[in-house]
Amino acid sequence: MIRDTVQTNSHVLIILPQEDRLEIEEGGNLFRFLVCHGYSIPSSCGGMGTCGKCRVLIHKGLKPPTESEEVHLSQVELDQGWRLSCQQKVNCDIVLEVLQIDETTQAKELLKHELHTALDPGMEKVYLELPSPGKEDQCPDTLRVQEGLGVRRITFPLSVLRKVPHVLRVKDFRATVTKEKDRALDVEPGDTTGAFYGLAIDIGTTTIAGYLLDLNSGQEMGIRSQINPQRSFGADVIARIKHVYEHSETGLKELQEAVVSAINRMIHQLCQTAAIEPAHIYKVTVAGNPTMLHLFTAVDPSQIDHSPYIPVLRDGMIISANELGLETNSEGRVYIIPAISGYVGADITAGVLFSGLHQSSKLSLFVDIGTNAEIVLGNKERMLACSTPAGPAFEGALIKHGMSATPGAIAHVLLGGDGEPRLEVIGNSIPKGICGSGLIDLIAELRKLELIDEKGKLLTQDNLRYAKRVTSDERSQPQFLVSGGDKPISLTQQDIRELQLAKGAIRSGVDILLRKWGAAPDDIDVVYLAGAFGNYVRRESVLRIGMLPPFPLEKLKPVGNAAGQGAKLCLLNQGEWIEAQQLAERVQYCELSYYKGFSDTFIDNLYFKGI
Amino acid sequence: MIRDTVQTNSHVLIILPQEDRLEIEEGGNLFRFLVCHGYSIPSSCGGMGTCGKCRVLIHKGLKPPTESEEVHLSQVELDQGWRLSCQQKVNCDIVLEVLQIDETTQAKELLKHELHTALDPGMEKVYLELPSPGKEDQCPDTLRVQEGLGVRRITFPLSVLRKVPHVLRVKDFRATVTKEKDRALDVEPGDTTGAFYGLAIDIGTTTIAGYLLDLNSGQEMGIRSQINPQRSFGADVIARIKHVYEHSETGLKELQEAVVSAINRMIHQLCQTAAIEPAHIYKVTVAGNPTMLHLFTAVDPSQIDHSPYIPVLRDGMIISANELGLETNSEGRVYIIPAISGYVGADITAGVLFSGLHQSSKLSLFVDIGTNAEIVLGNKERMLACSTPAGPAFEGALIKHGMSATPGAIAHVLLGGDGEPRLEVIGNSIPKGICGSGLIDLIAELRKLELIDEKGKLLTQDNLRYAKRVTSDERSQPQFLVSGGDKPISLTQQDIRELQLAKGAIRSGVDILLRKWGAAPDDIDVVYLAGAFGNYVRRESVLRIGMLPPFPLEKLKPVGNAAGQGAKLCLLNQGEWIEAQQLAERVQYCELSYYKGFSDTFIDNLYFKGI
Repeated sequence: MIRDTVQTNSHVLIILPQEDRLEIEEGGNLFRFLVCHGYSIPSSCGGMGTCGKCRVLIHKGLKPPTESEEVHLSQVELDQGWRLSCQQKVNCDIVLEVLQIDETTQAKELLKHELHTALDPGMEKVYLELPSPGKEDQCPDTLRVQEGLGVRRITFPLSVLRKVPHVLRVKDFRATVTKEKDRALDVEPGDTTGAFYGLAIDIGTTTIAGYLLDLNSGQEMGIRSQINPQRSFGADVIARIKHVYEHSETGLKELQEAVVSAINRMIHQLCQTAAIEPAHIYKVTVAGNPTMLHLFTAVDPSQIDHSPYIPVLRDGMIISANELGLETNSEGRVYIIPAISGYVGADITAGVLFSGLHQSSKLSLFVDIGTNAEIVLGNKERMLACSTPAGPAFEGALIKHGMSATPGAIAHVLLGGDGEPRLEVIGNSIPKGICGSGLIDLIAELRKLELIDEKGKLLTQDNLRYAKRVTSDERSQPQFLVSGGDKPISLTQQDIRELQLAKGAIRSGVDILLRKWGAAPDDIDVVYLAGAFGNYVRRESVLRIGMLPPFPLEKLKPVGNAAGQGAKLCLLNQGEWIEAQQLAERVQYCELSYYKGFSDTFIDNLYFKGI
Repeated sequence: MIRDTVQTNSHVLIILPQEDRLEIEEGGNLFRFLVCHGYSIPSSCGGMGTCGKCRVLIHKGLKPPTESEEVHLSQVELDQGWRLSCQQKVNCDIVLEVLQIDETTQAKELLKHELHTALDPGMEKVYLELPSPGKEDQCPDTLRVQEGLGVRRITFPLSVLRKVPHVLRVKDFRATVTKEKDRALDVEPGDTTGAFYGLAIDIGTTTIAGYLLDLNSGQEMGIRSQINPQRSFGADVIARIKHVYEHSETGLKELQEAVVSAINRMIHQLCQTAAIEPAHIYKVTVAGNPTMLHLFTAVDPSQIDHSPYIPVLRDGMIISANELGLETNSEGRVYIIPAISGYVGADITAGVLFSGLHQSSKLSLFVDIGTNAEIVLGNKERMLACSTPAGPAFEGALIKHGMSATPGAIAHVLLGGDGEPRLEVIGNSIPKGICGSGLIDLIAELRKLELIDEKGKLLTQDNLRYAKRVTSDERSQPQFLVSGGDKPISLTQQDIRELQLAKGAIRSGVDILLRKWGAAPDDIDVVYLAGAFGNYVRRESVLRIGMLPPFPLEKLKPVGNAAGQGAKLCLLNQGEWIEAQQLAERVQYCELSYYKGFSDTFIDNLYFKGI
C-alpha cells in the first residue's frame, strides 16, 4: 500500500503520533481511506456526516469547515483544527492525528490465561546441511532438499521454489526449510530454526485480539487487542452486512481491507515489541463470529441477515497468508476455525474447545454474551446450541449513558445503606458513562432495593433511601441519577427496558435449550461465562436480574476470552484444530426464531422475579 | 495488460494486421515490449541493434532512422517505413505491422497423431440440482454443494468460494461444479457439463505447440504452433540462460512473460476457432526441455548452463493457472510434466511415454534431435539417457545458407545422374535456403558421389558429374552450388564441418549408451525418431552420414512431435501423468561430458565411414 514515490494525482498523508506515511488518491474520502487502512475511527453513520463522531485533528492541510462540521464541532474545536474525516475530500498533502482508542486494562487481563495442550503445531523448521553438487552428484536442487529432509514428496509453492536455487547457495547448501506436512512454506539460508512463531486471532465485532506465540516453546511473546475498524461501517453484524449489499461494488472489499489492515498493524506492532520478523510467523489461527469470518475472507455474508440465515461457509479451512493479504510469512498458513451455524461461529467453537465442555461427562452450559448471546448446552455425548439477539445493551449502545468497557466507564455499582452509590470506574477516572457490567449491577441493586418492580418499572415513591435520586428526565420519564457533577450520569426507564429485552432473550435461550435437552438447571454442573462481559460482570447481579436460571453462585465460571484461548490451542496443537472440526460437527443448532414456544418464553422472561 | 483508458505517460500501440491495441510506457523499448507481449520478432543479437533482423513496418509514428537502421536497412526500406524495433524508444502513439512468421505445413502435419489411452482426465464437471434452503434446512452453501456431490470434504479455493453464494442463487440452486479429486475448480449456474476442455502444450526452444482437447470426448478441437518469442533473447537455451543472469532484475521475468503471453495468444486463438470460452479450459499439461520449463515457471535456470548442470526442479508439479498468468480458467490446473535431468527434460519424458519404449520388453532407442539431441536407450526393465550438444546446424544456424524448415527451405535433395540436383522446397517456392533435412540429404548425396571424402573434405577434382558445381567461395574455400539464379545457394566446407560436429556428437551418444548397456546395434528392435527433424529427414541419408549406427532402414520409426503427443496423453488420462513420473524416475542419466571415453568416441565419429 505504501509506496516510496508518490504517483501523479495522489497526496501524502502523515498520521500522528505514529508518523505513518500513506498515499491517498486525489479526491479520496479521508474517513473511508483511514478505515480501509486499519485505523479505528469512531462512527455510527458510516461516513454520512450525520453522527459527528469521526473527528480527526488536522495539523497541515486544513480547509474551511463544511456545514456538517459546523453542526457537530464547536468553534473552539474548529479553530484547533478538528474536522470530521468523512467530510474531507483530499486535494493536498495532509498531516493529521487520529484519536487513539486504548485497549483497556480489563481487556489486557482478560487475554491472559493458562493453556494446557501438547506443543504440536503441525509444522516444523528443519535445518539441513546438504552436500554440494558435483560431477558425481547432479541431483536437482529440490530433490536435494527432499533427500535432506528424508521425504521424497514435498510440494514447493512457486514462491518458495523460486527462492530455492539462490538460498541454497548463500551458505554453501546449509539452509532451513519450514514445512507443513508435505508442503514447504519457506527456505532460508543457514540455521533459523529458532525463529518459529504463530499468531492466534479472535476477530470480534467490536474488538480484535491477537496473541503472538513461540511455536518452539509455546511461550506467549505478546498480546494486543484493538478496536475492529469495521465498526465505522456499523456497530453490529447486521449493519455491516447491510453495508455489503448496499455497496455491491465496494462494500465487501472495504470491510475486508479494514480488518486485514488492522490485523497487519497488530502483526507489525507485536513483532516490533517482540523483536521478531513478521516473515517468521508461519501459522495463524482465526476465530470469530460467522459474519466476521465471511468479511475477513471477503466471502459475501448477505444471506446471513435474513431467514433462513444461510452462511456460505461453516467448515474450517486453510488459506495461504498471501491470498488474504496478511503480512506474515507470505506462504504462512491461515487456519479458519470451523463454525456451527450462521450465528454460532468459530468463536463459540473455539470457546467450547477451551472450556472442555465437549469432553466432560457432566452437563455444562457455555454462555458468550456480546451483541448476540450464543449458548451451548451439552456434554461429551451431545451438544445443543442457540443464538439470541441480546441487543447491544451490554456494549453501551441504546443506553442513554452507555459506553464500552473503556476508561471512564462505570464497571461496577453497589448501592449501600448510606444513600450514595459506590462506583468502580475503569482507569479510576471521573465517570464518563456506564458499561454492560455496570448496567447489570445497577439494575440488580435497584431491584434489590425494590426501586424497580417485577415488570421493570422504575418506582418513584420517596419512602426509600435512594428515592431522592429518582427524578424525571426532560421527557418527564423517571430516571435514576448514578453520578452527579458537571456531566451527570443517569439510568432511564428506557435503559431498563433495553436490559429487560436482552436478559429476557438470553434467559429464554437457556430455558429452551434445557427444555429440548430434557434437563433442569440443577442438572448443570458448571456454567462457563465467556467474553469480556462474562469476566467482569458480578455473578450475583446476573443471577439477581434473572438473566440465567437460579444457579448456585459457585457454578458460574468466567473463562475470559475463551475464543482467543481456543484459537491459541489450535495454534499450538494441530490435534486441537481437528478436534474443533469434530466438535463443531457434533453440535446441534436450534433456530430460536423458528421455535414455537419462543415468544411465550421470551415474554415471561422479560419480568424480574424474586429479589 | 490492455487497459481501456490510457495512463499519463504512456502511448497506444496498434499492431497490424490483428489490430491488437496495447499500451506502452513513455520511453519503452519497442522490441522488448513486443517480445514480452508474446509477439515473435526475429533477432539474433537480443535487441543490441547489431543483427538487423527485428524489423517492423511503421505506419504511424515514424521517426528518422538511427545509425544502426541506416546500416541494416536499404534506403527504399527506410522510405517505406521499415525500422528496427530495438531502435525505437516510444514517445508517441504508433501503428505498426509485425512480420507474420507462419507455421509451416510440415509443422501442422507433424502435430497430428493417433493417441491410444482411456479418457480419465482426473477431474470432472458435475451438474447439481440442490434443494433450496428453508426453515427446515439451514445448511450452509458450501455444505449444500458437498452434500449434492456426495463428498463431505471438498476444498474451495477462495476465488471459487467467493462465487458460491451468488452462483447458487442465479438458477435456483441448479449449478455445475468442476472438481479435481477433493478440490473445487469452479462453480457455474445451470448445467455446463458439456463445456469441459484441456490444453496440452509443448514449449520448444524454437516452437511452441498447443493442442486443445475436449475432455468429455477426447476429441481434438484445434492445434496451433508458433515461434517461441523468447527466440528474440537468444536462439538456444544457453543464450537465454545468459540473458537471465546478465539481467538479474528483469531477465527472468521478461522471458517468462514472453512465453506466457505467447501461450495466452494461442489459447485465445484456439478458443476463438473452436468457439469455446477460455474459462472452460480446466487442465493444462506442459512438456518442454528443462530450461524452457524453468523459464515458464520463472524459476532461475542459471545453474543449468555450467558444470555440474544442476536444475532446480525435476519432478512434475501442479500449479494453478492464475499463479502462472495463464488465461484459462483461473483455477485451472497446470501439470508440469517431470524431467529426467538438467538437459533431458519433460519433452523427452513425454516423448518416451508416447513411444511406449518404457513398456516394451524389447530394446528400443529414442532420439530427439533439435539444438541438442537427447537419446534414451532401454526397455521396461531399465532405461539410460544422455544429451549431446548437437549444435544448431540442423536448425539452420551457423550454416551459410541455413534456415529453419519454413517456406522456401530446401527440405530434400537428390543428386541424380544428370548433373542437376533435384530439390524439394517447402511451399514449392523458389529456394531461399536449406534446412536440416536438406543439409543431411545433400551431404549424404555428396558422400555417395564421393565428392566428400571420409574426413569430410569437399573434393575439387573435376572427373565427376557434379564436379562443375564445386567452386570456390570468396575466401577461396571450396563450396558446392546447390541452386543458381539471382540468389545462389551453396554448401561450404565450413557447413560440412558443422554437420560433422553435430552428427559426431549424436552418434557418440548412441555408441556410449550402447556400450554402457552392453548391447550392439543389432540388439535394438526399433529406433524412434522424434521431433520435426526426425519426421522429415530421409532415413537413408541419416544412415549414410553415420549419424546413427547402421540400422536396417525399417527399424527407424518417425514419431512426430512425441513430446506434444505425450502431453496429450497426460491431459486425457491422469494415470499417464503418474506413469510419466515413474518413468522419469526410472531413467538413469549419463553425463557424457564426464564420460572418460567420450573424446575418443567423438573424434572417431566425426569421420564418414562407408559410402
